[in-house]
Amino acid sequence: MTMPINKPLPTIAILGGTGKEGPGLALRWATAGYQIIIGSRQAEKAQATAAELNARLGINTIQGMENSQAARTADLCVLTVLQEAHRDIIETLKSDLVGKILVDTTARVEFQSPKPPAPPSAARLAQTKLGPEVRVVAAFQNVPANVLKKNLGRTIDVDVLVCADDPEAAQEVINLSNAAGMPAYYAGGLDNAVVVEGLTSILISLNKHYGGHAAVRITGLGD
Amino acid sequence: MTMPINKPLPTIAILGGTGKEGPGLALRWATAGYQIIIGSRQAEKAQATAAELNARLGINTIQGMENSQAARTADLCVLTVLQEAHRDIIETLKSDLVGKILVDTTARVEFQSPKPPAPPSAARLAQTKLGPEVRVVAAFQNVPANVLKKNLGRTIDVDVLVCADDPEAAQEVINLSNAAGMPAYYAGGLDNAVVVEGLTSILISLNKHYGGHAAVRITGLGD
Repeated sequence: MTMPINKPLPTIAILGGTGKEGPGLALRWATAGYQIIIGSRQAEKAQATAAELNARLGINTIQGMENSQAARTADLCVLTVLQEAHRDIIETLKSDLVGKILVDTTARVEFQSPKPPAPPSAARLAQTKLGPEVRVVAAFQNVPANVLKKNLGRTIDVDVLVCADDPEAAQEVINLSNAAGMPAYYAGGLDNAVVVEGLTSILISLNKHYGGHAAVRITGLGD
Repeated sequence: MTMPINKPLPTIAILGGTGKEGPGLALRWATAGYQIIIGSRQAEKAQATAAELNARLGINTIQGMENSQAARTADLCVLTVLQEAHRDIIETLKSDLVGKILVDTTARVEFQSPKPPAPPSAARLAQTKLGPEVRVVAAFQNVPANVLKKNLGRTIDVDVLVCADDPEAAQEVINLSNAAGMPAYYAGGLDNAVVVEGLTSILISLNKHYGGHAAVRITGLGD
């Protein structure tokens, strides 16, 4: 599916959007012309982040709201909380998310030997808790936050693996990723997300050992 | 650790080496000057594969042996069997592997919703079964077999993630990977291998959806 040319761009709420990952995604989508709402547990905190991002871009269209209101107002929601906050926020926002696509960016960063990542994926957990009225898509777990914030409007050296049970929702998120300058690929159903979520921990290992901000690219497709 | 310049190259046994992945690794290491033994459950089958590889390279140094003999004869063993054969061969070869490094290339390729990969990793399972007298290193799970066989002696567009509890064994396998034309990175302990093993399934999903032979590269290190 490609989006029809005349369809307006969806309004995107970035829930838990005052952390590390949310502002970078917000900057990239705002640069691409999307309407952005930053969500936070406290409306004031969301508004402060929105004001910073507006100042950086010289615009005034990014809004800040409490998470529930942000979710209800948006067409599509992107969840950018830390793993430990994931379960609570999903439960809190369940009714606000009905009918939406929820993009779950939650990564596994806590595991160390002997605690490897086990199913279910955070995204599968979200889908189970939210039920069929929400279409969960797992994506953006492996994008270094500081890379997002640089060179806005340009493609970055990161590929995004998109996992979803609903192919149409997956395609919408692939489009969003492309709009943010990140080539994206459909990587199978939500259960596959346990691997993609766990990959973040591998990248953190690489950063510790070699320095830098490791990310993943896919090679060899279409050969 | 870097290998001392005058240390002879280790002899490498490729156990279960008559399948898809083993011959490609054998070709690359033989090209780099390593002594190679192909192992198989049947010595004749191993010898036939060895003969084919020798013919391809115009050499006669690659040998074929039954797996146990191959393991005992080599300095370092690389296990290239399918996941379903993994447990049995580990048990069968336990005493033959004492004192060696075992490179476990086993990938997770069977999982489909609702069967995501769960710990332990194949490599962790191998380490548990083999005990401390064998140093298990997980590597090469995600290298497309057909890519290995092309452009021998040249670097290929694939990065190898190496997981091991023993850093010295990890470094030896990183050296081997480099010698085979694949940049390699230390990606943490053996439990991390569950993610790397599962990545193979993601790559298979990508191949099905987009065509080609997907592989992974790491970007952003040393920034």
